[in-house]
Amino acid sequence: MVQTIQKAFEWAGLSSEKAYQCAKIHAETSRDGVYSHGLNRVPRFIDYIKQGWIHLEAAPDLEINLGAIEIYNGNLAPGVLNATFAMDRATEIAAQYGLGLVALNNTNHWMRGGTYGWQAAEKGFIGICWTNTESCMPSWGAMNNNIGNNPFVIAIPRKEGHVVLDMAMSLYSYGKLELTRQKGQQLPFPGGFNQEGVLTLDPAEIELTRRILPTGYWKGSSLSIMLDLLAGILSKGKTTAAIDQFGKGNSVGLSQVFIAIDPLKMVDQSFIDQALTETIEQLRDSTAVDESGEILYPGERSLRTRKENMENGIPVDEQVWQHVQKLAEGE
Amino acid sequence: MVQTIQKAFEWAGLSSEKAYQCAKIHAETSRDGVYSHGLNRVPRFIDYIKQGWIHLEAAPDLEINLGAIEIYNGNLAPGVLNATFAMDRATEIAAQYGLGLVALNNTNHWMRGGTYGWQAAEKGFIGICWTNTESCMPSWGAMNNNIGNNPFVIAIPRKEGHVVLDMAMSLYSYGKLELTRQKGQQLPFPGGFNQEGVLTLDPAEIELTRRILPTGYWKGSSLSIMLDLLAGILSKGKTTAAIDQFGKGNSVGLSQVFIAIDPLKMVDQSFIDQALTETIEQLRDSTAVDESGEILYPGERSLRTRKENMENGIPVDEQVWQHVQKLAEGE
Repeated sequence: MVQTIQKAFEWAGLSSEKAYQCAKIHAETSRDGVYSHGLNRVPRFIDYIKQGWIHLEAAPDLEINLGAIEIYNGNLAPGVLNATFAMDRATEIAAQYGLGLVALNNTNHWMRGGTYGWQAAEKGFIGICWTNTESCMPSWGAMNNNIGNNPFVIAIPRKEGHVVLDMAMSLYSYGKLELTRQKGQQLPFPGGFNQEGVLTLDPAEIELTRRILPTGYWKGSSLSIMLDLLAGILSKGKTTAAIDQFGKGNSVGLSQVFIAIDPLKMVDQSFIDQALTETIEQLRDSTAVDESGEILYPGERSLRTRKENMENGIPVDEQVWQHVQKLAEGE
Repeated sequence: MVQTIQKAFEWAGLSSEKAYQCAKIHAETSRDGVYSHGLNRVPRFIDYIKQGWIHLEAAPDLEINLGAIEIYNGNLAPGVLNATFAMDRATEIAAQYGLGLVALNNTNHWMRGGTYGWQAAEKGFIGICWTNTESCMPSWGAMNNNIGNNPFVIAIPRKEGHVVLDMAMSLYSYGKLELTRQKGQQLPFPGGFNQEGVLTLDPAEIELTRRILPTGYWKGSSLSIMLDLLAGILSKGKTTAAIDQFGKGNSVGLSQVFIAIDPLKMVDQSFIDQALTETIEQLRDSTAVDESGEILYPGERSLRTRKENMENGIPVDEQVWQHVQKLAEGE
């Protein structure tokens, strides 16, 4: 899958090395079960390149250096490469100071946010990062889309499998709504408002109104606003309102923040192990709601899917896979 | 109100100065409309002192110093004083390095988390802080309480009124359930599970099962777990699981993290003003769900309540007010 996507990206104009880096992340995203932002996003990424929204030769430029804090202009380079660079740089700074904060302005869609959490954790660092987006959700009390869904990621390294939260500020993604509708199913919990202004389980009704529900109603709405303001201010970049004005299509000219922390500068490994173990054991020892039920820690499901998909192959949408194969042949 | 609470705290053994500091924060909390954690909490705080869970003479001790990061042992001193100290110290560090992170282990209940966000913003700093708690909510998929509700605060300074998020990880607090039940009302949205395991609007049913709902179902549950792990590891302190073991009553021996950022080290005031203005205007210019509806920014309601309460007086529960007045007379 990596090779096929890499070829598709090379045909789209990326250098061999950049094409490989991007392809690896798209494939790993599908491998971990986040199909919406892996293989399935390859055609859209190529479309954005064709639109001129992504500058293939660009790379981040350092704009401000405050020691443990660095701010870069992403120069509209591929969002995945910018974000990988930024989290890597944050871990380098954290190795020196204990904590590193790297903010990116003028960047593009980073695909799966969790990627950069796993990246930090793989290197032994705590990773915290978030991005803003164009408006794609109504704030609490509003009819129209006026805030982003601003994914927020926290990752803590753990030998037996990192603990990773990767949450968008909408309860469900539009990808999840589409998938649920295609299966002829209803959502497990209300995911947005229908045309009568009533919360509904029907994904098609929400796709129609575009009134998707923030996670926790007013709470996810407010958290989204705060993450947007922080990203815009700390990166010297655009807020969601400014991205909407910029109007260069979806998720172009974003602001992102990457924080890495070296926990071993504060506590030793056995302390961290104990904190993780006692917390995960407390979850596992709880009474599950249904008898067959297990209580998973954040990131555990991704790890299981990864294992399954590496053993059995990564499931693909046959149409998308054929499309990407054609792109890989330069068609 | 400050004077009355101060006297009550002095009778409980606090020095005049510490009693004043604590009383001021309890009164300001009621002034801002968070009645559950203001005047109403005074008797419980005094009860905790009597139980020996709060060490009145103690103060934080610096345990680890990494430049922009400092870790303190809170020595079970009053949580409000520890937290005020920690956020103040974080702003001092941020004034020097751009960012300051102060973590506290072995501390006590900080009352309203928002207090420390407003504190940072009043000094011109971005403030981010959170606390863990004892288990008071079931994680997603669990029957029993196994995670904290771990309030999370983000504050951004703004001349016309700071933008402040203060969110617990449960959708509703038990205080809100109690108040709703006392009024004979139902919750606006399901707040937990009843004895049949079905989501319910009835606060009394949730008080019975103690199966309160995390904000955004699985999302608030996972975010709560991550905030707990971060607080425990970064402060060299206890996780929720360890606090439960410690078992010294509610919210004793907590771990907390305080981050302050000086935004003027990165961008100038006009840049910040524009980011705030364009974002708040985008909210206000949106179409409200109901015609009389307004769309508020995070913290705006607190500010309105503050203004109202300063003009008309702070509403109190007559029984609680009489109780605190008696405590102030040493009864």
